[in-house]
Amino acid sequence: MRQFVVVGHEVPAAAEEISLEDLPGAGRLDVLCRCVNSAFFLSHDLRESVRVHLVVDGYVVRFEGSELRRLNPDERSTGALIRDALAARENAIGAMEANPSPGVYVGSGDLGSTLEALGEDHTVIQLHEAGDPIAGIDRPSKPAFVLSDHHSFTEAEEDLLEEHAETRVSVGPKPLHADHAITVAHNYLDTDGYAEY
Amino acid sequence: MRQFVVVGHEVPAAAEEISLEDLPGAGRLDVLCRCVNSAFFLSHDLRESVRVHLVVDGYVVRFEGSELRRLNPDERSTGALIRDALAARENAIGAMEANPSPGVYVGSGDLGSTLEALGEDHTVIQLHEAGDPIAGIDRPSKPAFVLSDHHSFTEAEEDLLEEHAETRVSVGPKPLHADHAITVAHNYLDTDGYAEY
Repeated sequence: MRQFVVVGHEVPAAAEEISLEDLPGAGRLDVLCRCVNSAFFLSHDLRESVRVHLVVDGYVVRFEGSELRRLNPDERSTGALIRDALAARENAIGAMEANPSPGVYVGSGDLGSTLEALGEDHTVIQLHEAGDPIAGIDRPSKPAFVLSDHHSFTEAEEDLLEEHAETRVSVGPKPLHADHAITVAHNYLDTDGYAEY
Repeated sequence: MRQFVVVGHEVPAAAEEISLEDLPGAGRLDVLCRCVNSAFFLSHDLRESVRVHLVVDGYVVRFEGSELRRLNPDERSTGALIRDALAARENAIGAMEANPSPGVYVGSGDLGSTLEALGEDHTVIQLHEAGDPIAGIDRPSKPAFVLSDHHSFTEAEEDLLEEHAETRVSVGPKPLHADHAITVAHNYLDTDGYAEY
């Protein structure tokens, strides 16, 4: 299982503020849509053993690869899935998430609660342009990568990551968009020993 | 200079058939939009030394990184740039492309003419899931990667690639979407020696 936690700093939880005709205008929801795409899609296939947590304005939208049925690669339809999940946020009761679409869950939460809930057996890895080169780290069997959208992590978020993250890793010498970093991280994990084939 | 040639097999050149509300319905134009995104975007920056050729229905839409001014990361706005370029295709006269937006050109062409025009000094590399692992190849200084959209290359295209491509390269053991393959190819070229930092 590979997990990705992506913090969307400006996406509104209020679904009615999200227009599918203007995903960038919805707090750069387009960035999160592309992260979901990169996390799950293979050519003509889906990565089933992947979980994505989108941290958005006091809520967390969770995607379960093994259960997803209505995810398509394009930004707009993914934006609709996220919007509809946020629209169902009031149906979450306490720790019980709502499940508005197969494999899509929504509940109250933030970065702290998400990191707490990852479980002890996961290796929490902050993806950050100033981190250690990914090529130098061992490939963990249960990584949980934490990324930010187009903004840097806040100080409070950095403090949480200081506490929970095992390491800070960079996927290359050039700073990448979050979705591109997810693609490279997947590829690094995929290619264990691949150069020797 | 890094170049990417992407063949869109079903995108219509007739711009009026393209709806920004349904990019997948426009012959999977969403795939090409994501390829343009992956080819050019860095975090808060653009890769200036990149050229992208989208081969579409008898026309080629060319993006020049050093000249682009109106490219945004989201799919919809990139779709609008491509649609508007195709709408201007009749303004191209003979070998003289039209230039409907800074850094965006359109002219008649196909995969054959695009490969011919790349120039002798470029190393043409077919990205293909059955190719040799990218980690085993030397990093060329002027690569031109050729990719297909969600469909395989046709037999005629394979024949052209047989003639022009120096090598057939795979970016990993799992078959990726074209845009993800571009991200990984960029990363491989970016990280020359990076593991030793």
